[in-house]
Amino acid sequence: EPSAKVIDGKSVAKQIREEISAHVSKMKDAIGVVPGLAVILVGDRKDSATYVRNKKKACESVGINSFEVHLPDDASEQEVLKFISDFNHDPSVHGILVQLPLPSHMNEQNILNAVMIEKDVDGFHPLNIGRLAMRGREPLFVPCTPKGCIELLHRYGFDIKGKRAVVIGRSNIVGMPAALLLQREDATVSIVHSRTKNPEEITRQADIIVSAVGQPNMVRGSWIKPGAVIIDVGINPVEDASSPRGYRLVGDVCYEEACKIAAAVTPVPGGVGPMTIAMLLSNTLSSAKRAYNLK
Amino acid sequence: EPSAKVIDGKSVAKQIREEISAHVSKMKDAIGVVPGLAVILVGDRKDSATYVRNKKKACESVGINSFEVHLPDDASEQEVLKFISDFNHDPSVHGILVQLPLPSHMNEQNILNAVMIEKDVDGFHPLNIGRLAMRGREPLFVPCTPKGCIELLHRYGFDIKGKRAVVIGRSNIVGMPAALLLQREDATVSIVHSRTKNPEEITRQADIIVSAVGQPNMVRGSWIKPGAVIIDVGINPVEDASSPRGYRLVGDVCYEEACKIAAAVTPVPGGVGPMTIAMLLSNTLSSAKRAYNLK
Ligand SMILES: NC(=O)C1=CN([C@@H]2O[C@H](COP(=O)(O)OP(=O)(O)OC[C@H]3O[C@@H](n4cnc5c(N)ncnc54)[C@H](OP(=O)(O)O)[C@@H]3O)[C@@H](O)[C@H]2O)C=CC1
Ligand SMILES: NC(=O)C1=CN([C@@H]2O[C@H](COP(=O)(O)OP(=O)(O)OC[C@H]3O[C@@H](n4cnc5c(N)ncnc54)[C@H](OP(=O)(O)O)[C@@H]3O)[C@@H](O)[C@H]2O)C=CC1
Repeated sequence: EPSAKVIDGKSVAKQIREEISAHVSKMKDAIGVVPGLAVILVGDRKDSATYVRNKKKACESVGINSFEVHLPDDASEQEVLKFISDFNHDPSVHGILVQLPLPSHMNEQNILNAVMIEKDVDGFHPLNIGRLAMRGREPLFVPCTPKGCIELLHRYGFDIKGKRAVVIGRSNIVGMPAALLLQREDATVSIVHSRTKNPEEITRQADIIVSAVGQPNMVRGSWIKPGAVIIDVGINPVEDASSPRGYRLVGDVCYEEACKIAAAVTPVPGGVGPMTIAMLLSNTLSSAKRAYNLK
Repeated sequence: EPSAKVIDGKSVAKQIREEISAHVSKMKDAIGVVPGLAVILVGDRKDSATYVRNKKKACESVGINSFEVHLPDDASEQEVLKFISDFNHDPSVHGILVQLPLPSHMNEQNILNAVMIEKDVDGFHPLNIGRLAMRGREPLFVPCTPKGCIELLHRYGFDIKGKRAVVIGRSNIVGMPAALLLQREDATVSIVHSRTKNPEEITRQADIIVSAVGQPNMVRGSWIKPGAVIIDVGINPVEDASSPRGYRLVGDVCYEEACKIAAAVTPVPGGVGPMTIAMLLSNTLSSAKRAYNLK
């Protein structure tokens, strides 16, 4: 019978939004300014449009101003760079986010590098990543999804220091920064990726597993040490005739099996997903506070 | 009976110096320019003076120009920054190295950040470290000691891809970049540090161990999997009445025990040590080539 605690990212994210909302009001009262987030969307991908809409809605819900630029798929790199430059100079904008993926004719690296580091609320700038990797340095922003993973561990009171943590996946936006964050918190970290042989031998030693792969149900019950804490970042559509859309979303972790052996598991959806946007709001708030030298 | 192959860093470093020397001559013939390395030394630490002298000698041995600035212990941060700025602008200087540690009244971070990234041959700039951590990005320079470790593995033909690698230590200058480099080469990496419980359980799984801790003989034979490759970065003085200086240098790894179980081991001295300077010369050469757009 299932026994794992369900890590309720949805309700934690709600609580964080309420905290942010209170901070934003306080800021408005104190200095008459609210944080602002600019989102740049290029092209007509439906999923990207949905993400951007959700981000806008989340901003509104906490009193953060949102600015949106929507360019057509055939916009030039120069146009995008022009908007970034304007937002870089605009004092009412404290965070700039370029929705990925960009159309293939654009150089993603050039565009991301153009966002000034003080407004890089995604935390993807190599200077931020370098500082995240280095002891004694502080990144200005921590990438939202891995930050959300750690925040869940903190809010549920799971120790990280001295624990064995295994991160599955090493992407620039999730796996790699998650590993760096866990190491900053003094976990002993191993990183598993597509070239790893017998990954289950490594994951079975983990007190904490963070999986960010994109393979439905890859992490089976037999991969998990009894009592481990499982953070499932994966969001994978699988066919489901019984669903009105014809599919449903599952994580990288076989949830039913994990529930039988782990101490705690994040569900998909409702686990890490809602935390990502909450952390984006949190980064935008910190950026505005930093801009006005508020504590 | 001992059976491990001795990884002879001294002779590999010599070979690399010869290769660099040949490249420098070719460059001189082709464009009449040789690479230049500037070293800034502050204060009177004997060990630092020795390191700087060795670096100068190594430069001379391959035809790289070396420039040295030696400031007194009570020099101001501004003076150091002034010299860095001059070297940043000097087209005959392709690498700038500030010998650490700096006197305690100086802000190391400010000073290291002042070296322009194109001349950061130590590879310690956070932007370089960030690029090293990120897939699809290329650092301009890789820190010398970890680069030397990987170079030894390459030159001896040890596979890295798909292997289990354990790095002991996570300092900004050795352990952390070594872990990032091994991961870039598709090893499955675990990082052990002072908060790790039962490190020997982790190291016993490693096909490759890189130890950069600073604890004499910490890695015992029982920590090593039969057939593993051991890169010992540690340089630790231990008392030795039979030595004229009263001490001798040993690594982090118990060499005698490692020789009985590992496939290959670096000795201390004569393993990683000589590689560090060879990689500094290599980085300085690359920098000069990049400055003149040579292949
Ligand atoms: N909850 C949220 O808010 C977010 C969720 N996601 C979800 O997280 C997942 C990962 O996203 P992202 O990091 O962007 O994905 P990427 O495709 O960029 O990276 C996937 C990583 O998984 C590794 N991998 C692939 N197959 C295997 C395997 N069989 N065994 C072990 N490792 C494997 C890859 O290894 P290699 O490097 O060797 O190729 C790679 O490092 C996706 O499902 C995505 O939808 C992503 C962002 C936010
Ligand atoms: N061959 C060469 O050219 C060079 C050699 N060295 C040598 O390499 C060694 C390491 O140097 P450096 O990286 O600068 O040293 P640091 O002191 O900066 O870092 C030491 C690392 O070892 C970890 N550590 C300390 N004690 C233990 C323990 N008992 N078990 C596991 N991990 C431990 C520390 O963990 P934590 O982070 O938790 O504190 C830290 O990450 C030294 O002996 C140094 O002389 C260094 C540079 C160049």
